Amino acid sequence: MLRLLRHARRHSTSSSSSAAAAAVPLTSPAFAVFGANTGVGKTLVSAGLVASLLASPSPSPSTVAYLKPLQTGFPDDSDARFVFDRAPALLRRLRLAGGGASTRLVASNHTLFPSPAVDPLPERQDTVVNYGGEEGVEEKALVCRTVYAWREPVSPHLAAEREGMPVEDEEVRWLVDRWLAEEDGGGEVWKVLETAGGVASPGPSGTLQCDLYRSSRLPAVLVGDGRLGGISSTLSAYETLLLRGYDVGSVILEDRGLSNDRFLLSYLRKRVPVHVLPPIPEDPKDDLTDWFSESSSAFSSLKDSLQSFHSRRVQRLNSMQRKSKYLLWWPFTQHDLVPVDSVTVIDSRFGENFSAYKVKDKTIVPQFDACASWWTQGPDSNLQIELARDMGYAAARYGHVMFPENVHEPALRCAELLLGGVGKDWASRVYFSDNGSTAIEIALKMAFRKYACDHGIIVDSEKDIRSEGSVHFKVLALNGSYHGDTLGAMEAQAPSAYTSFLQQPWYSGRGLFLDPPTVYIKNKSANLSLPPSIMHDQLSSCDTCFSSLTEVFCKTRDTSSAANVYVSYISQQLSQYAMSNNSEHIAALIIEPVIQGAGGMHLIDPLFQRLLVKECKNRKIPVIFDEVFTGFWRLGVESASELLGCFPDISCYAKLMTGGIVPLAATLATEPIFEAFRSDSKLTALLHGHSYTAHPMGCTAAVKAIQWYKDPSTNSNIDLDRMKLKELWDSALVNHLSSLPNVKRVVSLGTLCAIELKAEGSDAGYASLYASSLIRQLREEDNIYARPLGNVIYLMCGPCTTQDICTRQLAKVHRRLQKLN
Amino acid sequence: MLRLLRHARRHSTSSSSSAAAAAVPLTSPAFAVFGANTGVGKTLVSAGLVASLLASPSPSPSTVAYLKPLQTGFPDDSDARFVFDRAPALLRRLRLAGGGASTRLVASNHTLFPSPAVDPLPERQDTVVNYGGEEGVEEKALVCRTVYAWREPVSPHLAAEREGMPVEDEEVRWLVDRWLAEEDGGGEVWKVLETAGGVASPGPSGTLQCDLYRSSRLPAVLVGDGRLGGISSTLSAYETLLLRGYDVGSVILEDRGLSNDRFLLSYLRKRVPVHVLPPIPEDPKDDLTDWFSESSSAFSSLKDSLQSFHSRRVQRLNSMQRKSKYLLWWPFTQHDLVPVDSVTVIDSRFGENFSAYKVKDKTIVPQFDACASWWTQGPDSNLQIELARDMGYAAARYGHVMFPENVHEPALRCAELLLGGVGKDWASRVYFSDNGSTAIEIALKMAFRKYACDHGIIVDSEKDIRSEGSVHFKVLALNGSYHGDTLGAMEAQAPSAYTSFLQQPWYSGRGLFLDPPTVYIKNKSANLSLPPSIMHDQLSSCDTCFSSLTEVFCKTRDTSSAANVYVSYISQQLSQYAMSNNSEHIAALIIEPVIQGAGGMHLIDPLFQRLLVKECKNRKIPVIFDEVFTGFWRLGVESASELLGCFPDISCYAKLMTGGIVPLAATLATEPIFEAFRSDSKLTALLHGHSYTAHPMGCTAAVKAIQWYKDPSTNSNIDLDRMKLKELWDSALVNHLSSLPNVKRVVSLGTLCAIELKAEGSDAGYASLYASSLIRQLREEDNIYARPLGNVIYLMCGPCTTQDICTRQLAKVHRRLQKLN
Repeated sequence: MLRLLRHARRHSTSSSSSAAAAAVPLTSPAFAVFGANTGVGKTLVSAGLVASLLASPSPSPSTVAYLKPLQTGFPDDSDARFVFDRAPALLRRLRLAGGGASTRLVASNHTLFPSPAVDPLPERQDTVVNYGGEEGVEEKALVCRTVYAWREPVSPHLAAEREGMPVEDEEVRWLVDRWLAEEDGGGEVWKVLETAGGVASPGPSGTLQCDLYRSSRLPAVLVGDGRLGGISSTLSAYETLLLRGYDVGSVILEDRGLSNDRFLLSYLRKRVPVHVLPPIPEDPKDDLTDWFSESSSAFSSLKDSLQSFHSRRVQRLNSMQRKSKYLLWWPFTQHDLVPVDSVTVIDSRFGENFSAYKVKDKTIVPQFDACASWWTQGPDSNLQIELARDMGYAAARYGHVMFPENVHEPALRCAELLLGGVGKDWASRVYFSDNGSTAIEIALKMAFRKYACDHGIIVDSEKDIRSEGSVHFKVLALNGSYHGDTLGAMEAQAPSAYTSFLQQPWYSGRGLFLDPPTVYIKNKSANLSLPPSIMHDQLSSCDTCFSSLTEVFCKTRDTSSAANVYVSYISQQLSQYAMSNNSEHIAALIIEPVIQGAGGMHLIDPLFQRLLVKECKNRKIPVIFDEVFTGFWRLGVESASELLGCFPDISCYAKLMTGGIVPLAATLATEPIFEAFRSDSKLTALLHGHSYTAHPMGCTAAVKAIQWYKDPSTNSNIDLDRMKLKELWDSALVNHLSSLPNVKRVVSLGTLCAIELKAEGSDAGYASLYASSLIRQLREEDNIYARPLGNVIYLMCGPCTTQDICTRQLAKVHRRLQKLN
Repeated sequence: MLRLLRHARRHSTSSSSSAAAAAVPLTSPAFAVFGANTGVGKTLVSAGLVASLLASPSPSPSTVAYLKPLQTGFPDDSDARFVFDRAPALLRRLRLAGGGASTRLVASNHTLFPSPAVDPLPERQDTVVNYGGEEGVEEKALVCRTVYAWREPVSPHLAAEREGMPVEDEEVRWLVDRWLAEEDGGGEVWKVLETAGGVASPGPSGTLQCDLYRSSRLPAVLVGDGRLGGISSTLSAYETLLLRGYDVGSVILEDRGLSNDRFLLSYLRKRVPVHVLPPIPEDPKDDLTDWFSESSSAFSSLKDSLQSFHSRRVQRLNSMQRKSKYLLWWPFTQHDLVPVDSVTVIDSRFGENFSAYKVKDKTIVPQFDACASWWTQGPDSNLQIELARDMGYAAARYGHVMFPENVHEPALRCAELLLGGVGKDWASRVYFSDNGSTAIEIALKMAFRKYACDHGIIVDSEKDIRSEGSVHFKVLALNGSYHGDTLGAMEAQAPSAYTSFLQQPWYSGRGLFLDPPTVYIKNKSANLSLPPSIMHDQLSSCDTCFSSLTEVFCKTRDTSSAANVYVSYISQQLSQYAMSNNSEHIAALIIEPVIQGAGGMHLIDPLFQRLLVKECKNRKIPVIFDEVFTGFWRLGVESASELLGCFPDISCYAKLMTGGIVPLAATLATEPIFEAFRSDSKLTALLHGHSYTAHPMGCTAAVKAIQWYKDPSTNSNIDLDRMKLKELWDSALVNHLSSLPNVKRVVSLGTLCAIELKAEGSDAGYASLYASSLIRQLREEDNIYARPLGNVIYLMCGPCTTQDICTRQLAKVHRRLQKLN
């Protein structure tokens, strides 16, 4: 084991978090002992719990493993040694009192990485103790370990600095994961990890204890404080653990005659069991034997309540697949195609990873969230904790408050950031709503009103021109577009599987839908694909083949032959439509700039979209950018309009805006759009709203996320000179992928890397299950939680995800596709 | 002052929270001193800050008021006396060092309510001190007060119990509010409130310090802990304050040689300034004079940073109205009708009240949120804090995770609670979405599919029957209905101001809209109002006039003449429609059960709706209840279907579901509805979803809120025998209101009390501004934040709001309407 861990240490320092994450079995109950403060008796509680576990009658754990990841003041202080020394003695005493089978305990204690300043170097300790009753012989093991040990009795962050043994968080996490994953052949194993100091005491890198161990989210035993003021510090520590997403299994504290336990019991009732220990002798010479004896019933009830906590947790996790199949109705899911054992049970999330519970193996496994939970996710693990704190604050300060005619700080700040960011240089107003779909419906209402004003269609606001049947508004949009699932948003998109009579009997497709040219990577180069309606012999290969995407986005293409071809296609389509539809007006252009997401991750030729926008602006047709998918660095820049090189009149944001934590949407507009609604009558106002419009929690999250993404001190991917993200997907790997025979095309831009598989006939299209075996392998073998769009599989990260994580996931996909060949 | 406060105490105990809330001027900077623990030096910091304030050069505060609301160990311990004793001495010393004008300080100290056990009773102390430089004379005042004092040096909750002087939270809050509201003619006043123990130490009733003072949300000075473990307790205390919505203005802590301040400075950078004090002498005989001298620069920088915090806060609050007018675009608002100074600046919310900042007076005023923030609000102040903690936990544990084919605990638990509550006895599936409007669009898609299946309309899922133009689906709905603002939801409602071409050029009104009979209270009795289309001479006054609403809901009416009249109206309308519209099918019934909300708070005759449902079920037309407004105790029962006495096939929930904290919606359906989507093809699945479907934070909030509302231990309004809310609106007052000549009708049910004003011609209808002067008076004079629906004004509370609060608000409205006569 020692060698393995030594090796592990080297391994972990050369890579980073996700690679390191291991499957943690829930067959072994494991708890982390946290302290409400230092000096509240964490080690006494650990020792007492360990002894109580070893002493408990069958079925009792055959092995108890105790881990002290960070020890200072070593070797004078060694909590692991204390547990190693005391637990056997305690056990003997408990056994003498309780009778039962005779026991042979094999105990060990060793220290993996003492700092260079530690002197004398500790030796590994082993002992074998026999004791107990009369019947039979049980064999038990106690394995105590210290991972890092420093000499000075100060906080680990100071000791690490002073003694020249720094330790990275990832290293600690890696080792804890490995320790948790260790199985001990046969018999039940319990694991007890003792943290250092209080819940928010710094570890060697300065990361707080509660943050350092968050990735494994072990249920906590909180050792409370029985002293004066201890109610406060215990409850605050409890809240700090909640703010990291921990479950607290039990609170235990010393009775110091202040009845702190009584108050806590009442305050925490229905939430956490509270156990109370007799006063700890203050005399340092007391060997605590009597105290441990007096405490045995408290430790025994602590053990029982942890046991019951663990059983309930596992039972619940085991039941969730089945229950979900019978109570839930998933969107976009044919339930008959989802076998009950393929339901993913998500226990938590940490940064880019889900923690998924595997029912079959009873393990918790980290999985890279490759679909960024429907393209919403921005948080790395640091941002997630920051957002959690801000969410708690916003809920406590505001809950929700009504918006019209009101103002509150989060909404105002969020509006300022939007107008100074994605809306910079063009937008002047922010209209909040709940999701992409509502943001689009609002955008359409804005555009139509503006069009009507500009084209003299509304003369009298009291008269409903609809009754005359003389005016119909349509949108100009692109085939393959998608703008959301409410009817108004659907009407603005071209017919598809989503819009059939079966799905939406009210859909009629109120648009002129053009065929867009697309760009894709295949065999290491970027290629233009023209639809039949644009196909033209004027275009040579220098117009259709590019060495890189940078060329595709180059503004010099505005004078290319392709530009001519596009312009004539666009104006011909518009003129033709106008001629054949007398009462119909193209009253808005709506596009997803650069990438069509749900339509299959198609990169639309930016030149084409730029010319389309120009043409519409010439005709006074308001332009809407649907940036629900593309906004906030999804494509490597804050707004995709930077890639297109032109501005809309209206644009829509959602998804990444809140960091991916709660729903919120915004529709941004220019001042002329806003002006079209002004008058002295309420009837001309934009009468569209949702109850939670501009809800403070969403706005608070957005304020944090928008700033976090673009600040190089929090997002190391930001290239400040160009205000772009670094390339996240290794270009050599992308090129390799694009050359695989079973790959039709690749699109790699910003946080997105999409791969379309080659497929024919019924294997193609939205309903295709062609990719599903690949998806299953990615989920089960590679711990990548991917979700296909027809035959398109994709990896999507957050704006702050490290290149390292991206490369590792992409390499796995590459290997998997190679094998599939 | 003393007499006033004594009086206040009597007053506050005889009423409760909202009455007590007072306007708090921001002209006086006020801070609350909280401790990371006991014994960290809160009183030293208070004394040092007070002295620093009094010593600071002009413009400096002319008065500093210090308040110790809760003191134990009295009179041996008296923090107020300490401040009273030390500040003048310190001041002299500071002045000797700093020079400046000569000063005359008038200082006082007194204790308002010592417990009966306190002996000897303290006398009021007064002193006048002159000191300082050579030029001029400044007059300054220091007013120190202790409010409640107990003899035993234990936590207030124990002392209060043992010494027989219990104190209610409302009393403490009332007195603190009065203290904050006190103005001191001319000159700047600073206020310093010192809390007891740590941030989460219990007050006399057991309420934690952080909760006890939450209503005034004073910015906090957090006295950190410089001892071993102090980083952890300081950060945890900081997070406890955030979880109550406090802003922390500064952290200050003693240097104990552990560099805690250095770590905190780095951790809290960009958030909170951190100040460090020299080590406090441990010798109890030390009079601290030297220490205070050494600390003067720390206190001075603390004072400066608080001053700057306060200025920035006030500056920002002052700028918000103007900025909001130029950046925001409010829903349902004609911006030209909102003068900049009428914008409500909401600083926070506490239970049922907003804290609104009044720019003109520079005060923070509590306002009863009478529109329950667009009908979303459920939380009393306790639930708000519980939700805040749960929100923080859910964000930290899950952030957001993708839903289809997955399951997570909050979604599953929420589904269980929905199916066991509002869906009890009929629903078996939960489909999550974002808001009422999306829940309705989903419900319509469900109903249409079911109708198509039941009526043999879909034979082949691949064939789009739309192209044949032979089938059109319509809904059956009621005039005055409202189901949301997205197009699909709008199409299901009758034409209105919201649906004009101006607002939504795509609206066509795809329904058969019936005229419903309504019920209202006027002149103390409940009356039935029949639309002309139902008017019938069969009906006598016993059919149309009722002594109470209970009679209206009585099932015996099923055999009344009114029932016959309704049935024949309904079937005649349906037959007539079927005859004249060959290709059109009525494929769903959609109603708001019992109350039409946005349509003007009309109580629809429940008998009529019950018969409508029955008729549709006979015809195999799926029935949708839009319970977005009526769900979760809004009408006094968990689901309005209990009032109607019949079940739908599909129902929609949102608003109150999350306790009113974040958006989340659910569409519930029966198993036969779900079955209509099952097959072996993905194309028949319900292809509608939103990115944040079943987001864990919303589901977590819903789980807490749904349980909280119906648990008599958390909601004292629950009448367990009948599983209904108690009557919240005083029936005598309601009757009085209904008899006022300027009141057309009253509807009072559950948490709603709506009043329609009499109005004629252009004063009637949605666009009317008739109620606006009344609304302005309610907001400005009565501190009721109401928002009209045309000529309807209403009060709405949460399911847990006390009758007392309701009565107080209703009485104010009654008085205001009487005056208006």
